[in-house]
Amino acid sequence: MSLRESVTQSSSRINSGVNVSATPAALYNLHTQSSPHNTDKWQSTESRYNVQRGKFSAVSEYDLKFFQELLGPHRTVLGEKELEGHNTDWLCTVRGESSVLLKPKTTEEVSTILSYCNQHQLAVCPQGGNTGMVGGSVPVFDEVILSTALMNQVESVDTWSGVVTCQAGCVLQTLDQHVAQYGLMIPLDLGAKGSCHIGGNISTNAGGLRVLRYGSLHGSVLGVEAVLASGEVVDCLSSLKKDNTGYDLKHLFIGSEGTLGIVTRVAINCPHRPAAVSVAFLGLQSFEDVLSTYKIVRHQLGEILSSCEFMDKSTLDCVEKNLKLTSPINKYPFYLLLETSGSNGDHDEEKLNKFLELTFDLGLVKDGTVATEPSKVANIWRLRERIIEAFKLDGCAYTYDISLPLPSFYKVVEDLGQTLHPDVLSVTGAGHIGDGNIHFTVTSKEFNQEIVESIEPAVYEWTSKVNGSISAEHGLGFLKRNYIHYSKSPSAVKLMKQIKALMDPNGILNPYKVLPD
Amino acid sequence: MSLRESVTQSSSRINSGVNVSATPAALYNLHTQSSPHNTDKWQSTESRYNVQRGKFSAVSEYDLKFFQELLGPHRTVLGEKELEGHNTDWLCTVRGESSVLLKPKTTEEVSTILSYCNQHQLAVCPQGGNTGMVGGSVPVFDEVILSTALMNQVESVDTWSGVVTCQAGCVLQTLDQHVAQYGLMIPLDLGAKGSCHIGGNISTNAGGLRVLRYGSLHGSVLGVEAVLASGEVVDCLSSLKKDNTGYDLKHLFIGSEGTLGIVTRVAINCPHRPAAVSVAFLGLQSFEDVLSTYKIVRHQLGEILSSCEFMDKSTLDCVEKNLKLTSPINKYPFYLLLETSGSNGDHDEEKLNKFLELTFDLGLVKDGTVATEPSKVANIWRLRERIIEAFKLDGCAYTYDISLPLPSFYKVVEDLGQTLHPDVLSVTGAGHIGDGNIHFTVTSKEFNQEIVESIEPAVYEWTSKVNGSISAEHGLGFLKRNYIHYSKSPSAVKLMKQIKALMDPNGILNPYKVLPD
Repeated sequence: MSLRESVTQSSSRINSGVNVSATPAALYNLHTQSSPHNTDKWQSTESRYNVQRGKFSAVSEYDLKFFQELLGPHRTVLGEKELEGHNTDWLCTVRGESSVLLKPKTTEEVSTILSYCNQHQLAVCPQGGNTGMVGGSVPVFDEVILSTALMNQVESVDTWSGVVTCQAGCVLQTLDQHVAQYGLMIPLDLGAKGSCHIGGNISTNAGGLRVLRYGSLHGSVLGVEAVLASGEVVDCLSSLKKDNTGYDLKHLFIGSEGTLGIVTRVAINCPHRPAAVSVAFLGLQSFEDVLSTYKIVRHQLGEILSSCEFMDKSTLDCVEKNLKLTSPINKYPFYLLLETSGSNGDHDEEKLNKFLELTFDLGLVKDGTVATEPSKVANIWRLRERIIEAFKLDGCAYTYDISLPLPSFYKVVEDLGQTLHPDVLSVTGAGHIGDGNIHFTVTSKEFNQEIVESIEPAVYEWTSKVNGSISAEHGLGFLKRNYIHYSKSPSAVKLMKQIKALMDPNGILNPYKVLPD
Repeated sequence: MSLRESVTQSSSRINSGVNVSATPAALYNLHTQSSPHNTDKWQSTESRYNVQRGKFSAVSEYDLKFFQELLGPHRTVLGEKELEGHNTDWLCTVRGESSVLLKPKTTEEVSTILSYCNQHQLAVCPQGGNTGMVGGSVPVFDEVILSTALMNQVESVDTWSGVVTCQAGCVLQTLDQHVAQYGLMIPLDLGAKGSCHIGGNISTNAGGLRVLRYGSLHGSVLGVEAVLASGEVVDCLSSLKKDNTGYDLKHLFIGSEGTLGIVTRVAINCPHRPAAVSVAFLGLQSFEDVLSTYKIVRHQLGEILSSCEFMDKSTLDCVEKNLKLTSPINKYPFYLLLETSGSNGDHDEEKLNKFLELTFDLGLVKDGTVATEPSKVANIWRLRERIIEAFKLDGCAYTYDISLPLPSFYKVVEDLGQTLHPDVLSVTGAGHIGDGNIHFTVTSKEFNQEIVESIEPAVYEWTSKVNGSISAEHGLGFLKRNYIHYSKSPSAVKLMKQIKALMDPNGILNPYKVLPD
């Protein structure tokens, strides 16, 4: 895992809360970065996306005085430069204009802030590690930024049941290292783990590499404490594995991206850390063979399978060419990366070998390698983990995080690949096949609006037609909220809006996010 | 599994939807059954629990005509005798007085019924297999009973992803047998599986024997279609493993016991059916040894552990004495039943043997037996599965389903056992230790109100003090709703009531359930 971590660290934001925009923004060169408007500062969200400010108050001197008295001067951050990294996202897609960032340390402080903002009609943008992909954690206008950066206390680890209780601002990787002392692990793993906050992960219902083994956060999160827009603290911080006493309110805060309440404390079910990890990298001739192999994977490796990642030839070609990395196997149209984690390495290896023998004999897997030695495991993972970096080096990448029924999983690449602008360099598909979650990515030498128009809204329409989701694991945030109808029924959206109106009647919590205009 | 199934069948309701009250009521002789008022018919809920009828309309001839025109005469069931099994629960704790039961076959029919009832202020009691433990699925007064019995179509099985989509009235066991054809399993397993409906399971967030392996239904259920009180159909029937497009509304319907909407269709994530199952039955000297052993179980059997059940000596004594069953090992103060399920029987057996060697060497496990041959596996499971039947033969049983932090798991039996009435025959603890879920049960020769008073509310107060849950897996239903404050904060209960008022403004859906007066 060491190499994956080093990749993670280099490609993710620094966790200091300041000066965090420069390096990572350069790493993932989305089309917006190389747009004509992008010089040192890219356009504000307001002008780029033509969005209207809500009827909120502007932060006054009087308000600042209140915040400074509550938190002191060091935890009330002012100044354009100081706020630069908090007003922008690392993908350089959005830019807000907030003038104040607050750093509470306790639930009570969050409650006081929200109660005040609600009374004074001040909009609030909750922010964790600000590693989101859809502009959900950045202010759109001048919202007060409420950062969880100083709410980073691990409160307890129940080693009997395997449950950690902590504040929302704990960094995912730090939290995982903390529970590792007790032989436990956080069941969530994703690229931004070096800087994302667990509260942000939960608010986004972050997915990542382990969903097929450990399920979604709706299953892993046992308890949530959240503060409503009114400042009222809703305590659902149970650390029990079973609790059927009334409506399970914590689920309202999981995946609602801070629009219904700010998550302040959480309790998470932690599986035992595996004693052994193996990785296999396989080459396959057709996507039909990928599907057939995946079926055998589920059958033969069921309980030890901890990751099942997919990439096509175009993706690996790009990784090899741009990063000078070498695949351990020959070239094939498709590749699978399997990871097993278990309590007995010998057993896992035997299962993996048996699986390989079978799929070789059936002609499904054409070539493959297995690694158990950590540096070799890391070499293989690097091919998967550095895909984004590789795309960036093409010049400009347009990426779409969608989930699809498995038979349609790769069809999106084949179908949409036909109709793209001639300036496209590569059309690729890679992702979490075990979750039906593909990242469909197109690259070009430089940003081209015509390329965008050849993809959108076609990709959403295509996804909707096969009953897929236009956001598998990234949420809707600011950027995708007006596409919600491609994945959700009008009655569902109506009920979402009613719940928002009930829980945040003044609409101060993360406005312009999740719900459509 | 065959023997477990036969036990299940004998102890659960017949699935015809009629004539279901006589046999099962006799099987689980709760104190209420042998109360002074219990002759052929026990008291109505109204008089026994002194509850006030809400301001709903009574069903008129005009209403009946509407229902009969919609559903025809056979699916509009009338008559005291025909409704007997639907007005009462199998535990004989509640008795409603409904005069009409409706059997829709489609979501559209459910929608039409609810829309009509909402307009005419008629209260509705949704009913699945009516196997609930807390009076949640039985009318309190004259609510219209809406049965899902005829909504039993399996719509599709996605064998690539392992997802079944079906109507809410499918019987759990039937559904499991259906997906078994494709090598899949329903991740939920519980005693009433021969008659409970999957829609009822989801509405209750039913727990059972596999939660420690497959997690709760909030993780396993991928999609829900539900009909609101207004008749509006909320379609969240995604069968995708990842979908982060807006608020995840399905969780509102999981565990809300039909008070926010009636679940009509569901999509469930189905794990691969294991190739091998082994069971171990172990004797231990102290509860400390049980805890230490459980920790090693998690470590050594992690990914193959599919059940970890606990019982004390009093429980097994009662099973042996009353059912003439024989334990395969000598007498000990505590017992653990472990089940492993995996893709390779040899590996599982090796892991289990290694675990046993270690725990024997450490002096934690004093005696034990392992079974892999189906009839022996069944013999061991019988000791666990027939506990309720055994208690019944003592005369009268008072049982409490609670979840607790593991160090307090057995202390509830030790502490409360001290203060009980002298007529008590046995004080026992058994349950799902992997989930921290104990069933604390006291038996006596016949019902004695003083025994009840020596337990309640002491057991709830005790549970609340250690931050436990007064309902681990059964829900609050009618019987426990006014105890909700022992497990939930006032702010949480307030928000629950607001959500109920939003989604069911006339309060017609399963009134008198879940939320306190």
